[in-house]
Amino acid sequence: MNFSEKLETGIRKKNSCLILGLDPNPEKIPKHIPKTPEGIFIFCKQIIDACEDKICGIKPQMAYFEVFGAKGILILEQLLSYSRVKELITIIDGKRNDIGSTAEAYAKAYLGDGPLSADALTVNAYLGDDGILPFVKLCEENGRGIFVLVHTSNPSAPEIQDNTEVSIRIAEKVEEWNITNQSPKNFFSSVGAVVGATYPDALKFFREEMPHAWILAPGVGAQGGNIEDVLAIRKDGLGVLIPVTRSVLYASDGKDFAERAKEEMGKLWEIQKI
Amino acid sequence: MNFSEKLETGIRKKNSCLILGLDPNPEKIPKHIPKTPEGIFIFCKQIIDACEDKICGIKPQMAYFEVFGAKGILILEQLLSYSRVKELITIIDGKRNDIGSTAEAYAKAYLGDGPLSADALTVNAYLGDDGILPFVKLCEENGRGIFVLVHTSNPSAPEIQDNTEVSIRIAEKVEEWNITNQSPKNFFSSVGAVVGATYPDALKFFREEMPHAWILAPGVGAQGGNIEDVLAIRKDGLGVLIPVTRSVLYASDGKDFAERAKEEMGKLWEIQKI
Repeated sequence: MNFSEKLETGIRKKNSCLILGLDPNPEKIPKHIPKTPEGIFIFCKQIIDACEDKICGIKPQMAYFEVFGAKGILILEQLLSYSRVKELITIIDGKRNDIGSTAEAYAKAYLGDGPLSADALTVNAYLGDDGILPFVKLCEENGRGIFVLVHTSNPSAPEIQDNTEVSIRIAEKVEEWNITNQSPKNFFSSVGAVVGATYPDALKFFREEMPHAWILAPGVGAQGGNIEDVLAIRKDGLGVLIPVTRSVLYASDGKDFAERAKEEMGKLWEIQKI
Repeated sequence: MNFSEKLETGIRKKNSCLILGLDPNPEKIPKHIPKTPEGIFIFCKQIIDACEDKICGIKPQMAYFEVFGAKGILILEQLLSYSRVKELITIIDGKRNDIGSTAEAYAKAYLGDGPLSADALTVNAYLGDDGILPFVKLCEENGRGIFVLVHTSNPSAPEIQDNTEVSIRIAEKVEEWNITNQSPKNFFSSVGAVVGATYPDALKFFREEMPHAWILAPGVGAQGGNIEDVLAIRKDGLGVLIPVTRSVLYASDGKDFAERAKEEMGKLWEIQKI
């Protein structure tokens, strides 16, 4: 199966385009859980268990694991294995980027068969073609995906991305990478894009600019984006993934955190189910 | 000491603005060394030992450690400790980038006091102010530095960076971040920039655009950049760092690899000494 087929299968099975974002901030996890790598593992595992019926995948955020060095990365490896057993799609949010030779090493790390292997990786296209093509190559060879940062969800995104129109240029490249590498049997392809839910006009614009890209749309919840704006750009229920992170992870800082996470995810699930 | 003072001290002590890039590609290391994390450690350690008199610092490239997962990160932690004992400046080449809350976690991971703590980190400013300010804050608080990608050394850099003039906009931001946060006693400040040696006109242009930024100029050697172009933009021997990577790391794939690395680094040292 290629990445688009994996996504479609996962979404149909759970009737969900929701992705659980794992940004385990030690300052925000429930007080009874130790602020250690082991504590982080327990926290994430319980959140996954609570939400698994309502999500098609998980999106761990590298920064929160890197902060613990090797011990944090080991926890991430375990969470990836755990999620694979549960048949959840794994999208590593690393926003990796580098020149060609190094991009090859990053592609091998995340889209190869090593300990941090995942179904997909977020990447930053500031370096252009030769920083992205090594990832596209492994997407095709190994049935994986990437999500290229096009228009991010944060307040200062327009400062660079709109003022210079660089986001439009990158969107053109995303479409080019997809057309060149597209599996003819699928409408959507393996090169997706990150477009923040916090800019609804950008969401509509870039949906049209990149018809073949799966759109990962962060920003619903704590960042203020509306889920309806994202759902409006689905095509036959597909083409969109909605990461849900802080509003679920930190729904409670008490011992009921997993139960409350489940409730919050359940509310979103109801809104987005077809 | 702030980061700029650390760099000046390091450069004056060794009469060197050379930085040893550590991109340990398992396919390229000498055949007698195992292609394992342990082998990578031995390889890097011997290269550091061979070059330490001729360099002011090291620049490990995260991708080549991440490819081994937690075991690779552990090796990196050990190399960072080893280099600190030798009073080498440590610049982690991670090109990290994310929204504010996550940028805080990355800043803490690399510019805080955790196991991957370093003197500086390379970052990508595609997300604008709120993706960079958390790093700038820790630079000031902890005497660390960042190098913002402005104009990279790879062949496809102009495709995005020049066509959209985004690199000029980011250079303006670099200068702004420096002016706002500058320690008045130093001319150079803690927010540096990556400008590839492979584009000599860009190097001259951006030196003028960002007078207060230390410039990390990769691309000398294997990528075809001329060291003379980079040396021409120094001011009183300062303001520039030259990473040297593949031409030294892979000078030989035999048992004489460290000796040959030392020779290659020695040649560059002669050219750049004041």
